[in-house]
Amino acid sequence: MDRPALDVVALGSAIVDVLATSTDAEVEAHGLVKGTMALIDADQAETLYASLGPAVEMSGGAAANTVAGVASFGGRAAFIGKVRDDQLGRVFTHDIRAVGVEYTTAPAPDGPPTGRSLIMVTPDGERTMNTFLGAAVELTADDVDADLVGTAAVAYLEGYLWDPPDAIDALRKAVEIAGGAGRTVALSLSDPLCVGRHRDEFAALIESDVDVVFANEAEVTLLTGASSFDEAAVAIGGTCEVAALTRGADGAAVVHRGERIDVPAVAVTRVVDTTGAGDLFAAGFLYGYTHDLAPRRCAELGALAAAEVISHVGGRPQLPLSALLG
Amino acid sequence: MDRPALDVVALGSAIVDVLATSTDAEVEAHGLVKGTMALIDADQAETLYASLGPAVEMSGGAAANTVAGVASFGGRAAFIGKVRDDQLGRVFTHDIRAVGVEYTTAPAPDGPPTGRSLIMVTPDGERTMNTFLGAAVELTADDVDADLVGTAAVAYLEGYLWDPPDAIDALRKAVEIAGGAGRTVALSLSDPLCVGRHRDEFAALIESDVDVVFANEAEVTLLTGASSFDEAAVAIGGTCEVAALTRGADGAAVVHRGERIDVPAVAVTRVVDTTGAGDLFAAGFLYGYTHDLAPRRCAELGALAAAEVISHVGGRPQLPLSALLG
Repeated sequence: MDRPALDVVALGSAIVDVLATSTDAEVEAHGLVKGTMALIDADQAETLYASLGPAVEMSGGAAANTVAGVASFGGRAAFIGKVRDDQLGRVFTHDIRAVGVEYTTAPAPDGPPTGRSLIMVTPDGERTMNTFLGAAVELTADDVDADLVGTAAVAYLEGYLWDPPDAIDALRKAVEIAGGAGRTVALSLSDPLCVGRHRDEFAALIESDVDVVFANEAEVTLLTGASSFDEAAVAIGGTCEVAALTRGADGAAVVHRGERIDVPAVAVTRVVDTTGAGDLFAAGFLYGYTHDLAPRRCAELGALAAAEVISHVGGRPQLPLSALLG
Repeated sequence: MDRPALDVVALGSAIVDVLATSTDAEVEAHGLVKGTMALIDADQAETLYASLGPAVEMSGGAAANTVAGVASFGGRAAFIGKVRDDQLGRVFTHDIRAVGVEYTTAPAPDGPPTGRSLIMVTPDGERTMNTFLGAAVELTADDVDADLVGTAAVAYLEGYLWDPPDAIDALRKAVEIAGGAGRTVALSLSDPLCVGRHRDEFAALIESDVDVVFANEAEVTLLTGASSFDEAAVAIGGTCEVAALTRGADGAAVVHRGERIDVPAVAVTRVVDTTGAGDLFAAGFLYGYTHDLAPRRCAELGALAAAEVISHVGGRPQLPLSALLG
């Protein structure tokens, strides 16, 4: 087979992050589970925003962060996801193209505004996300460009795509095209609460179509129903070619064709904001995977990219990640 | 006279900053003068934005940054300036209110979008600004709330207000109200290129109505036509009660009733982004001035606030400046 024209095409929610410094008390007062993502509607977004301190706006979105990272490593990446033709939509579009990602999904001409995530960053650097999906719910199978998906070595799917009603059709179409073209299908489990909402659907898709699974400790444990991380790693490893599992400061474990490899986290001076940590781990891993690097090296690149993104505010890399290739 | 209800009311352009890491070569390629502010139209903004790398959006605006700083010190402040009723306008409104500034100017229901400044931050931390005024040009005398201006100890005016066509009427109305109520009128010269455009008007207003002038070295030298900073300081000091003059890493000089006091800059580990340095110097100075502190202490608070803001990206304080009061 010829070398694919793209390394990674990602399907996900197009989101602009609104990041505000917050406190544990504020997170609790809003009834939120620290470190997770809650879905909120337009009114809730309005109310929560009014209660937040001064904020910073930066492009985000889990899978979008991942392809931004792949491109920053020097990889060839594309993104499929929906914004509205509004100011935040133009911000999202500018930022992802500016880092070199191909992004041509037509913006919605009407309907809800571009999605945003109100992110409360607590003093420990942990982020708690409140996402108003907005225009991201308008993603349909029609937005999935068959040529784009067919020419990418990896189709990377965001678990969050189970939340908007029609995005699942887009996801299934992408899986079908990628599978038909003999490409790799990768899935991120996205968030523990998201796994809680869609556990059976995730498990079925992994069983039938997914080659590479990305998850953190809480997600994989919930998905597999295991009683420990070690047990969960064995279970997930039996269902796919590669499971890339992140454990925060405890590093990552890769289960590759049943064999487990543990890689330590890369130390950082201060964890400023964990937004994007898992997304950028996936970016480093996928850059390595699409450049035929060994699983251990893939995980090491993931750990390096995650360390960069947690050292500053926001879920996109601030330095060219290609500098980490050494 | 009773203690005024507000310490500072500021009149200025309501702007959202779009900050992107850039290089000296890019600044030159666009024909820009590093460290200054150029006015651009909607088309130029579009073209320049497309050429910039990934960016971060944060509320800005020179006088708005200053009152955000005054409020962050614990002062009572208000802002008058115009946004459009669009997404960036809501960002601006949220951020300035979230820091405790009273902001009630009605957003424009039509016309150009909320103004933005495309800021290229070079590796030396210097910022070069390209401002599309947008809705800021819609500011008129009708937006000047007489009660608000009359109840503030200081009316702080942005020199940039000479650029939008009708804002000058708003400025004159504010000066009249403040003068009539026996309040202090303060003016920031804003930018060397701005002084170049409006030198005679600035000089006439200072002569007739301004009590406190804020300027940097280039601005005051241009305004006075002096051949050195020392000469400029003497000249400006003869025309107003207080001239607060900033000199970057060389600190600041205050000329108070003809007497000059020099204050060193506060050292920072790394100058990340000078956006807002002058604005936050003015914030610290005005907080001190409205709390009856001696001119030297006012300038020291200005230097402390400036040091905070140049240590990170963006022109608004990230820490509560009240912590600097010691």
